[in-house]
Amino acid sequence: MEVTRKNFSSVLPEVEKAINEADFLSVDTEFSGLHASNSFHISPLDTPEERYHKLRKGSSDFLVFQVGLCTFCYDKENSTYEAKPFNFYVFPKPYSRAAPDCRFLCQSSSIDFLASQGFDFNKVFKEGIPYLTSMQESELRDFLEERHKQYTQFSSPAFVTPDSGAEAVTTKGPIEIPEEHKEFIEGICNNIQEFLDKEGEESLSLPSCNGFVRKLIYQTVRQRFQSRVHLGAKTNEKKQRLIVVTRIKSEDEMKKKELEKQSTELAELEDAVGFSKVIRLISQSGKLVVGHNMFMDLVHLLHRFCSKLPENYQEFKAMAKCVFPKILDTKLMANTTPCKELLPSSVLGDLLKHIYSPPFKKPEVVIPENFPRYDIDDSNLHEAAYDAYITGICFTGMSSFLGGLQKPPLSYVPPDAPIVKPFTNKLFLMRVADVPYLDLEGDDVLPSRDHVFHITFPKEWKASDLYQLFSPFGNINITWLDDISAYVSLYKRDQSSTVMSTLCKRDARYKILTYELFKNGFKDKESRKRSHAPESTEEEPKKKKPLNVDAPVFVSRSRSVTPPMPEENGNKAEEEKMAADSTSEQQPNEQKMFEVPAW
Amino acid sequence: MEVTRKNFSSVLPEVEKAINEADFLSVDTEFSGLHASNSFHISPLDTPEERYHKLRKGSSDFLVFQVGLCTFCYDKENSTYEAKPFNFYVFPKPYSRAAPDCRFLCQSSSIDFLASQGFDFNKVFKEGIPYLTSMQESELRDFLEERHKQYTQFSSPAFVTPDSGAEAVTTKGPIEIPEEHKEFIEGICNNIQEFLDKEGEESLSLPSCNGFVRKLIYQTVRQRFQSRVHLGAKTNEKKQRLIVVTRIKSEDEMKKKELEKQSTELAELEDAVGFSKVIRLISQSGKLVVGHNMFMDLVHLLHRFCSKLPENYQEFKAMAKCVFPKILDTKLMANTTPCKELLPSSVLGDLLKHIYSPPFKKPEVVIPENFPRYDIDDSNLHEAAYDAYITGICFTGMSSFLGGLQKPPLSYVPPDAPIVKPFTNKLFLMRVADVPYLDLEGDDVLPSRDHVFHITFPKEWKASDLYQLFSPFGNINITWLDDISAYVSLYKRDQSSTVMSTLCKRDARYKILTYELFKNGFKDKESRKRSHAPESTEEEPKKKKPLNVDAPVFVSRSRSVTPPMPEENGNKAEEEKMAADSTSEQQPNEQKMFEVPAW
Repeated sequence: MEVTRKNFSSVLPEVEKAINEADFLSVDTEFSGLHASNSFHISPLDTPEERYHKLRKGSSDFLVFQVGLCTFCYDKENSTYEAKPFNFYVFPKPYSRAAPDCRFLCQSSSIDFLASQGFDFNKVFKEGIPYLTSMQESELRDFLEERHKQYTQFSSPAFVTPDSGAEAVTTKGPIEIPEEHKEFIEGICNNIQEFLDKEGEESLSLPSCNGFVRKLIYQTVRQRFQSRVHLGAKTNEKKQRLIVVTRIKSEDEMKKKELEKQSTELAELEDAVGFSKVIRLISQSGKLVVGHNMFMDLVHLLHRFCSKLPENYQEFKAMAKCVFPKILDTKLMANTTPCKELLPSSVLGDLLKHIYSPPFKKPEVVIPENFPRYDIDDSNLHEAAYDAYITGICFTGMSSFLGGLQKPPLSYVPPDAPIVKPFTNKLFLMRVADVPYLDLEGDDVLPSRDHVFHITFPKEWKASDLYQLFSPFGNINITWLDDISAYVSLYKRDQSSTVMSTLCKRDARYKILTYELFKNGFKDKESRKRSHAPESTEEEPKKKKPLNVDAPVFVSRSRSVTPPMPEENGNKAEEEKMAADSTSEQQPNEQKMFEVPAW
Repeated sequence: MEVTRKNFSSVLPEVEKAINEADFLSVDTEFSGLHASNSFHISPLDTPEERYHKLRKGSSDFLVFQVGLCTFCYDKENSTYEAKPFNFYVFPKPYSRAAPDCRFLCQSSSIDFLASQGFDFNKVFKEGIPYLTSMQESELRDFLEERHKQYTQFSSPAFVTPDSGAEAVTTKGPIEIPEEHKEFIEGICNNIQEFLDKEGEESLSLPSCNGFVRKLIYQTVRQRFQSRVHLGAKTNEKKQRLIVVTRIKSEDEMKKKELEKQSTELAELEDAVGFSKVIRLISQSGKLVVGHNMFMDLVHLLHRFCSKLPENYQEFKAMAKCVFPKILDTKLMANTTPCKELLPSSVLGDLLKHIYSPPFKKPEVVIPENFPRYDIDDSNLHEAAYDAYITGICFTGMSSFLGGLQKPPLSYVPPDAPIVKPFTNKLFLMRVADVPYLDLEGDDVLPSRDHVFHITFPKEWKASDLYQLFSPFGNINITWLDDISAYVSLYKRDQSSTVMSTLCKRDARYKILTYELFKNGFKDKESRKRSHAPESTEEEPKKKKPLNVDAPVFVSRSRSVTPPMPEENGNKAEEEKMAADSTSEQQPNEQKMFEVPAW
């Protein structure tokens, strides 16, 4: 069901009902870009914490254009799921002149990708549902309450400029009317006098004019017509600001009008909270929220509809768990044994096709009458609600497959089943070879990187120089950091111990460090910078959390030691596709780009 | 005439003809936002140089969505102008994987404003004409030529990855095919063998797969089928990357195919230059380019279609003059005596109405048959071509009015007439009280600011504290810089000399400096930072250029000493409207916003 500013209020109760009835929910988002610049590009050697910081700094300035929510309710009698897909167009239209005026980034290739998928940008910008974070809402509420209090304190409305908002003004005493405006202001006063004399019309709209002239009008009219007229501000459909004059019979009527205005303002604020209400409903339900490759979706949902992303990684985990107590990433499920071995691809569209064929069993899912039907084909891919819908189907498909492997086999796997639990609150990490997931519930699993080395070298160096330098240790994988530095990973891990003694200080042109030393040096610098941060690497080294052997086997799909840098292409699904399995190495600068591949 | 990616190539010759026949041109642009943040907000005390730096840093990340160009050709026989308005939708769609993937900013209020005017965002994003700066074009050309050279050098196409672009890759020797892909790759080889055996089809599209698998295919197919097939890359309408296999009869045919591909690539680059060609045509014509309040338009046109904006202000002036040898800002003309006294408003829509009534004479302008007619009403305002069209009309209206004042009166004022010349290459400065214009041809006119003081104070201070502090010197105007600093301008300039002696060091809580001292201290710091910058304030102070008394009288419309900060609203026209004449003072922080106006 398509939801825009036009039908949001009327659909919201239905959304609430669907959430409350559901067994689990699935979500997907479409956004205006992926990476603010290449320096925030994800690397195969990112730790979960580093990846979070890259997303926070490099992706959170993009905007969410569309949020898909699909509720799944299991019907035991018929052994079917009822799915209700909602497709929300969202846009942070500043609802008043006091409301935040958001600046957001777009990435051309992402916009072009959405355009090629038939995305309706006009619907986003013209009919997108507004939203506010909790912080923005409470600031605006405080602002309104303060202004309403002022009205009460100063009682005479002549002291309150109805125009004021973000542009609230203070001047010292009345402004002298400049010569060139006297005639115009006199004309306005005559019009108001006529309007009062005639007793016919309810209100009089004054001609649109600039802020200064409006101020002169407020000042003059209040002096001459005090307690006989009420002045209100209005913005017409052409975004011009007008003053509306209404007739007042008594000071009481004036106060009544002011109180009406105040309650309208509070109602407008309530409306402006908009889509954030849906996220609050999801949050309050405490239900399992399923997404596919959902780290970036989660980051955007939190950042736009809940609260600014925290700088501190642990605070991010706490915030995520607080807003969404239970999440599950189907891409992680698909990349974990035993599903992994049966799924040639975990890209969402491909995954769905695999789920529909043996050994998986096509899940029975029905969409109620009043929702538009989705054909299961590629034509709807990248519509957020469709992607949420098929993500939910993939979840049910994989979880019932896992249920079938139990002894005795389970005919229905509820979202809180013990076999689902190991996947809960873990996020898939795209293109990371050796870290299975980001764990929202505890410390991340951090593997040994003793076979990885950090090297800085002259700008002229190319891949071949690194290959040559490391030739005594067998094949290597290069992860470029910039023009003059890279991580080098050995395929033959047993060679790791000899690297430093062989290469260290053999040549002044390069400098080599073990991964651990480089990271610790870096962290030292970081913690020196932020002296208030108590964590220090001088304390005992972080204990590595042992892998639970009873838990599903979390092994990366990739067989290479360090999987590749992405091809730059600006869309999540394509990026997901590119990430799968590749071992290409992207060169960071043009000079290197022009090299002829050596194979 | 609406011009998009679809009809651009066919319309371009007509655009060229219109430019070459024209007497003058007018332009307007619509963009995705105005100010990246409040810290780049324009101030009434900006010097032209400071304003440039604010626009460069704070506005150039926004995107141009639409460019309006209107050509005006005078028909002496009928004493009419023929106007040809072209409305170009532009968007930097990355034309290939090697092309730049632009990140751009949007401002919600600007997007909302365009939406309220019926702007078609889908047309921009889906049909926008691409463009490249000269630098981007030459980098891409070098890249292609380098790759084509590589082909020639290594002759065997097996060495060139057709896929390579920004993602060009280097690996050491062939990659071993991972176990899980062997079956798939074998299948592909069998399909190719069948395709070769059958001799029916011209080409064979392989199933879409990820980058790594594509690489394995290239590698294997070239080993097995060398010189019998040619592999090409294709992106289908779903943005999936495919390999297309074609049959090759000889090495010569292979080379021919490669050369065809190369010329296609060069043609694609030529297409990608797109809208920049129109700017180049305008530039080459050397004709007068008219705009209304065109500083920001100029900055965007240069930045997006010509070259990155220079950091150095003088270089910006040189660049602007080089690209557009003659420009004229109708807002400056309207704000200069004698037009100024006859025009109650210089906001574009208002200006047009005034130009249509006495003492101005409605200009006779016709639009040819094959161009859509524009009704002169507000319904088309903010469509770039309409705004360009009425800007041109305003120019002819004002210049023929000036011609009528000559002795003897001129019946026709050509764009190079002596009475037009004083306005050429000068840009109107919005909301600057005392600097009449930015002069692209020479040094800017910089007025005395002896009555202006810079003051830093505790965060708790409000306007009233400043009013009280300065009460011995009469009324003041405050220009807030941030929470703890502001410029204070005296209305009574003759009091200026006593301020420092009276206030300096009377109170440790604030610090006061003359405008000149503050600016010089600031400049000193700046030049110390950029030690390579030779300009220093320690040299003799810049000579103030005397006002030429024969020239038109450039006096700001505003009577206040320092005109106000803008209301925040995200659209140029409304901002222009707000700027006119207002004396309100925007408070920089919320605490101050909550104050009750004292009048």
